[in-house]
Amino acid sequence: MSLKALDYETLNENVKNCQYAVRGELYLRASELQKEGKKIIFTNVGNPHALGQKPLTFPRQVVALCQAPFLLDNPNVGMIFPADAIARAKHYLSLTSGGLGAYSDSRGLPGVRKEVAEFIQRRDGYPSDPELIFLTDGASKGVMQILNCIIRNQKDGVILVPVPQYPLYSATISLLGGTLVPYYLEETDNWGLDVNNLRQSVAQARSQGITVRAMVIINPGNPTGQCLSEANLREILKFCCDERLVLLGDEVYQQNIYQDERPFISSKKVLMDMGAPLSKEVQLISFHTVSKGYWGECGQRGGYFEMTNIPPRTVEEIYKVASIALSPNVSAQIFMGLMVSPPKPGDISYDQFVRESKGILESLRRRARIMTDGFNSCKNVVCNFTEGAMYSFPQIKLPPKAIQAAKQAGKVPDVFYCLKLLEATGISTVPGSGFGQKEGVFHLRTTILPAEEEMPEIMESFKKFNDEFMSQYGDNFGYSRM
Amino acid sequence: MSLKALDYETLNENVKNCQYAVRGELYLRASELQKEGKKIIFTNVGNPHALGQKPLTFPRQVVALCQAPFLLDNPNVGMIFPADAIARAKHYLSLTSGGLGAYSDSRGLPGVRKEVAEFIQRRDGYPSDPELIFLTDGASKGVMQILNCIIRNQKDGVILVPVPQYPLYSATISLLGGTLVPYYLEETDNWGLDVNNLRQSVAQARSQGITVRAMVIINPGNPTGQCLSEANLREILKFCCDERLVLLGDEVYQQNIYQDERPFISSKKVLMDMGAPLSKEVQLISFHTVSKGYWGECGQRGGYFEMTNIPPRTVEEIYKVASIALSPNVSAQIFMGLMVSPPKPGDISYDQFVRESKGILESLRRRARIMTDGFNSCKNVVCNFTEGAMYSFPQIKLPPKAIQAAKQAGKVPDVFYCLKLLEATGISTVPGSGFGQKEGVFHLRTTILPAEEEMPEIMESFKKFNDEFMSQYGDNFGYSRM
Repeated sequence: MSLKALDYETLNENVKNCQYAVRGELYLRASELQKEGKKIIFTNVGNPHALGQKPLTFPRQVVALCQAPFLLDNPNVGMIFPADAIARAKHYLSLTSGGLGAYSDSRGLPGVRKEVAEFIQRRDGYPSDPELIFLTDGASKGVMQILNCIIRNQKDGVILVPVPQYPLYSATISLLGGTLVPYYLEETDNWGLDVNNLRQSVAQARSQGITVRAMVIINPGNPTGQCLSEANLREILKFCCDERLVLLGDEVYQQNIYQDERPFISSKKVLMDMGAPLSKEVQLISFHTVSKGYWGECGQRGGYFEMTNIPPRTVEEIYKVASIALSPNVSAQIFMGLMVSPPKPGDISYDQFVRESKGILESLRRRARIMTDGFNSCKNVVCNFTEGAMYSFPQIKLPPKAIQAAKQAGKVPDVFYCLKLLEATGISTVPGSGFGQKEGVFHLRTTILPAEEEMPEIMESFKKFNDEFMSQYGDNFGYSRM
Repeated sequence: MSLKALDYETLNENVKNCQYAVRGELYLRASELQKEGKKIIFTNVGNPHALGQKPLTFPRQVVALCQAPFLLDNPNVGMIFPADAIARAKHYLSLTSGGLGAYSDSRGLPGVRKEVAEFIQRRDGYPSDPELIFLTDGASKGVMQILNCIIRNQKDGVILVPVPQYPLYSATISLLGGTLVPYYLEETDNWGLDVNNLRQSVAQARSQGITVRAMVIINPGNPTGQCLSEANLREILKFCCDERLVLLGDEVYQQNIYQDERPFISSKKVLMDMGAPLSKEVQLISFHTVSKGYWGECGQRGGYFEMTNIPPRTVEEIYKVASIALSPNVSAQIFMGLMVSPPKPGDISYDQFVRESKGILESLRRRARIMTDGFNSCKNVVCNFTEGAMYSFPQIKLPPKAIQAAKQAGKVPDVFYCLKLLEATGISTVPGSGFGQKEGVFHLRTTILPAEEEMPEIMESFKKFNDEFMSQYGDNFGYSRM
C-alpha cells in the first residue's frame, strides 16, 4: 500500500532533519511532569513573563486602548488611563489604516518604521532609512526570511555561526536545506572570537566544496552571554568584507547588559565608524525584538530588521516574500514603536516607566551574579559570568561513569544529566549539545529569569542535585578542564 | 568583482520566482498614488477594517483587559467594561502562563485549542481532538507550514489547486520549489468542479514525471466566491482517497455565506459522514482564521488548522517545526478563543454581539448583490453571484484593440485594464492573471468590502470608466463568451 504525503516516511527530509533543542526532549518531558502535577521551573527558554516578570505598565495601557478604541470616546476613560497613554494610543491608531484589525503594509506600519529609524539614529549616531526597516512577528521570523533568501542548496547556501549558538540558526539552516559551517567560541577566553580560527573554518568549508555566504553573530551572546568588544566587531566586519559574507547581527539582547565595562555596541555603528570603503561594502542585516530587554514581551511576537548595503532589487524581493503572509501582527508593531520611543522626562508616565524598567534590569544583573557564583561553587562546574543576554551556560565536567551510564541509557551525556536534574528538582534546562559544543565537553543552558527571591533556593536545589550526581557517578578521575 | 549573498543575482531562485499579485504591481502603484494624495479604494485585499468595518465590541474589550491585566484590580474598571468581558478576560488569562507577554506552547494555548475542538464538534457533530489542532499567526502561516512538510522537490512535492486560486498557494509552492498542477474551475457552471477534469490533470502531471501529493480547495471560494455542494465535496474526498492525496481545506470564509440554499459544509463533516474506510483514510488539514467572517480581525494574525488522519509522528514533526518560531502571538489566540465561543444568550453582551455581527453579515450579503448586479449591468462584463467569501470576480471581455494596446505597453491585458481603472477611479483591484485563468479570458478581483453607502457610487464610477474604456478600444468585434 503506497504512502500518503503526510506519512512520516514521505515528509520533506529537511523538516525531519532539523532539531530545535530549546523545545526538544527536555521541554517535552518537563511538560509531561507538569501535567502529572510536578512543579516545574521553566528555564529552558527566555520567557520572562512566564517566570513572574510583570509587564511594563505604560505600553500595556497604550496597546489596550488601541485594542478598544471605543474607550477613547468614553467620558470615564481618564479614571483608569493616564492622559499620556491616551494621547499615545491616538497617535498609534492614526498610523494604522483601520486600527489593529487591519493588515498593515507587509513591511509594517510606515509610522512605526520611522520611529525605529529615529531610534537607530539616536543609538548609533548615523542616519537610518525607514524604507530599509521591516517589522516582523518576532526576530526569529525575520531571521528565517533572510536565511530563506540566502540559502539555495546544500553546497552553496551556507552560514557560519558561532558555536555554541542559538538553535534557531541550525534549525532554520536545516529546514532550508543549507549547511552549517561551525565556528567555535573560546570558553577559556570568556567565549571570545579569534578571527584566525574563523579563516580556518572558511578554508575548511571551501575545501569541501561549500561556498560560505553569510555569517551570524549573536551579540550579546546566546547561550554564552558575552558582549563582543568593539575591536572584535571591527575584525569580524573586516573579515566579512574580505570574504564577501553577509553579516547577520542578532542583537536582540542589546538592552540586557550587566557589566558597565562591556557596553553593547551595534554592528551598524562599528561598520559606519570604519568608514568607506567598508561602510559602503559590507552587507549587514541587524535584528531586534520586543521579546527581550526589560520588556520581555515574547508572546506579542514583535521584531524588526534593518538592512545596510542591500541593493534595492533585493529589498523588493524580501518585500514580496513578506507580502505572502500579508503583515506582521499590528499590536506587536505598536509595542515596537513604544519600545523605541518610551515616555520622555516630563511625561506623566515617565517616572513609573523608569522605575519599572530599572527595577527589572538591576534585578537581572543581580540574578546573573547569583547564578554564576552559584554554579562556580558547585563540584565539577565552571561558568563564565553573564555579561549580557538572559542565560547562564555552565560547563559540567561529567565523570566517565556518568558518560558510561548515559551511553547505556541511549542518551547524549548532557541530555542524561539535564533529564536527571529535571526529575530531581523540576528545573527545566537545555543541554549544551542543543547549542553545539566542542567534543567531550558538556554544558547546560539556563535562563537567569526565575524570580530573584526564588534564586537562592533554586541554586541550593541545583547544588544538592549536582553533589549527589557527582558522588553517585564518582569524580576522582583526574579530569582536567578542556 | 564577485557578487555578495544578498545581491539580486545570487538570491535563492525560488524567492525570485514566486509571485504574489494581491500585493503586486497594482497595489504598489495604488500606494504611490495614495502618497501623491489621490483617494484610493483598496479592494485588492480582504481587509474589512481598512474599509471602515468596526470591530466587534465584546472581543476587543476582553483582549484589551488581557493586555492590561492590572485593570482587573482597578475599582473603577466596571465603569467602562461589562462584567462578562471582565470574567472572560480572567478566564483567558488563567489559560496563559504569564499573560499575553509570555510565549505559549508552540501549538498555541491548550485551553484555547480545547475551545476550538468544542466548536468543531458542535459544528460538525463529530469529535475533535485539541491535540490535533495547532493555532497559527493567521491561516496563511499554517498553510505555509503544511506545504513545507509536503513539498520535497520540483518533481515530487506537487499540489493541485483550483484555478483561479488565491495566490498564497502558487507563491508558497514556488517559494518551496514545488510545482503547481493547475485544475480549472468552470466559470459557466458557476465555478463548479468536475472530477473527470481533475483526473485528467493528475494524469497529465504524471505523464510529465510529477507526483501529485496534495490537493487544495478553497471553500467558500477565493476569488470565485462559490460554495461547494455536499455532493461535490464527497467527490473530491473520494478522489483524494483514490489518488492518495492530502486534502488541504481552506475554509477561512465559512462564516461568509450569502445564499441560504448554499450553506457552508466542512470537509471534515463530509468526510466523517462518508464513514469507514474513507473517514479513516483521507489525510485532511482544515484551516480557519479570525481575519474573515464578521470578525475581519486581519491585523491580529490569528488562525488554526485541524489535522485528520495524520499519523502521530508527523504531528510531532509539525510541532517541532512550529517550535522554531516559538509561538503564535498570544493575543490573536484569545481572539480565536472568543470567535469559537462567543457570548451566549443571557450574557450581558449577547444582544450587542448579535446585533453587531448580524449587521455586518447582512450588509455583506446586500453588498454582494449590489456588486454582482452592478458588474452585470456593464458592457462586456459578466459576473457570477458571490455565494460566499468576500470577493467578486467579474470576467472582462477585452476588445482586440485593448489587448493590442496592452501588448504595446508591455502589460498583460487585464493588468493594463486594472491599471487604467486605478488611475481613472482610484479603485485598486487585482487582475485575474494573478489568480490564474483560462487562456484568452480576463478577470479582475475586487472585494465586496467598501462601505455599503459608498457602494452605489463606486459601481457608478466603475461603469463610467468601463464605458469609456470599451468605447475607446472599440467593441464591435463579434466577441463571444468563452
